[in-house]
Amino acid sequence: MKELENRILTDGKVLPGGILKVDGFLNHRIDPQLSYRMAQELRRLYAEEQVNKILTIEASGIALACMAGFVFDCPLVFAKKSKTKNISDNVWSAEVESFTHGNTNTVVVSKEYLGPGDRVLIVDDFLATGAALVGLKSLVEQAGGTVIGAGIAIEKAFQGGGDALRREGMRVESLAKIAAMTDDSITFAE
Amino acid sequence: MKELENRILTDGKVLPGGILKVDGFLNHRIDPQLSYRMAQELRRLYAEEQVNKILTIEASGIALACMAGFVFDCPLVFAKKSKTKNISDNVWSAEVESFTHGNTNTVVVSKEYLGPGDRVLIVDDFLATGAALVGLKSLVEQAGGTVIGAGIAIEKAFQGGGDALRREGMRVESLAKIAAMTDDSITFAE
Repeated sequence: MKELENRILTDGKVLPGGILKVDGFLNHRIDPQLSYRMAQELRRLYAEEQVNKILTIEASGIALACMAGFVFDCPLVFAKKSKTKNISDNVWSAEVESFTHGNTNTVVVSKEYLGPGDRVLIVDDFLATGAALVGLKSLVEQAGGTVIGAGIAIEKAFQGGGDALRREGMRVESLAKIAAMTDDSITFAE
Repeated sequence: MKELENRILTDGKVLPGGILKVDGFLNHRIDPQLSYRMAQELRRLYAEEQVNKILTIEASGIALACMAGFVFDCPLVFAKKSKTKNISDNVWSAEVESFTHGNTNTVVVSKEYLGPGDRVLIVDDFLATGAALVGLKSLVEQAGGTVIGAGIAIEKAFQGGGDALRREGMRVESLAKIAAMTDDSITFAE
């Protein structure tokens, strides 16, 4: 999506350690009009599918997921990072390693809100190692639902997570796909 | 807002300890069309004001705040719960006590994204003791910005936080205002 690529080039910053800082429009301060247009683009990409639920993970995926729910006209559910290790029987749970924070979170979704019959589009702001997607996919599968695919704002393709999931047969659509990144340049795939 | 009150009566559950469970449409599974209409109602209430920023707190305020940003046509910023006690010089920070979780969080906003010139509408899903609002208001004041008011989905008026802020002169608009709550009844104010 050209608009998103341009925005990354204008407002993004590459920080040491392979961090792409886009918190001016994507995950701290958020441009909701851009989020809306990204959601519309996801709708276009998945137009043939009968998506009936959006799934994301707190916190920074929620804004795009909310717009996606609005545009797809279906509810969204966000997986919560669990504060305790004692997971109740009422939730689906999965472990998700965080590349940015260097820790592991248990994420949970109430069994009430994810079940068979759900045709789920997983939405997130970033895809790097794919750990969040793997965890969210596992929640849907535990619930007996169907993962239609993923809709990602920015994929750091050089970290390989997206392609690993594609090789397993999952549909992963990223609105901006970064092939390479140095301190002073960002190269998009294709 | 009648639609929200009806939804609370239909889908809400009162749990022991004065907890109102509305995670079927507001803060776990989210109905984005309802969020959009709530944002429109906030826009109507604050139509005379020149709001140019929406501020909320992660995670469950983000969906409504994103819709508010969309409808007000301005950016939103969400305050992050800080993982460390070492707060950097680059952020505004405040302490927020959580009624639901029984703990205190330090919340931060990057100084880049909140400053003088900002006319801020604070948006959140719940208002009970008012601790989150007080913290968010403090962030805006530290930044030299102007708090236009608050836009809340559900106010538990019997906990007094909203009226305490109103007495201090802050404008607080709640789309559903609960005057009293028992295990099997919910009474709205007015």
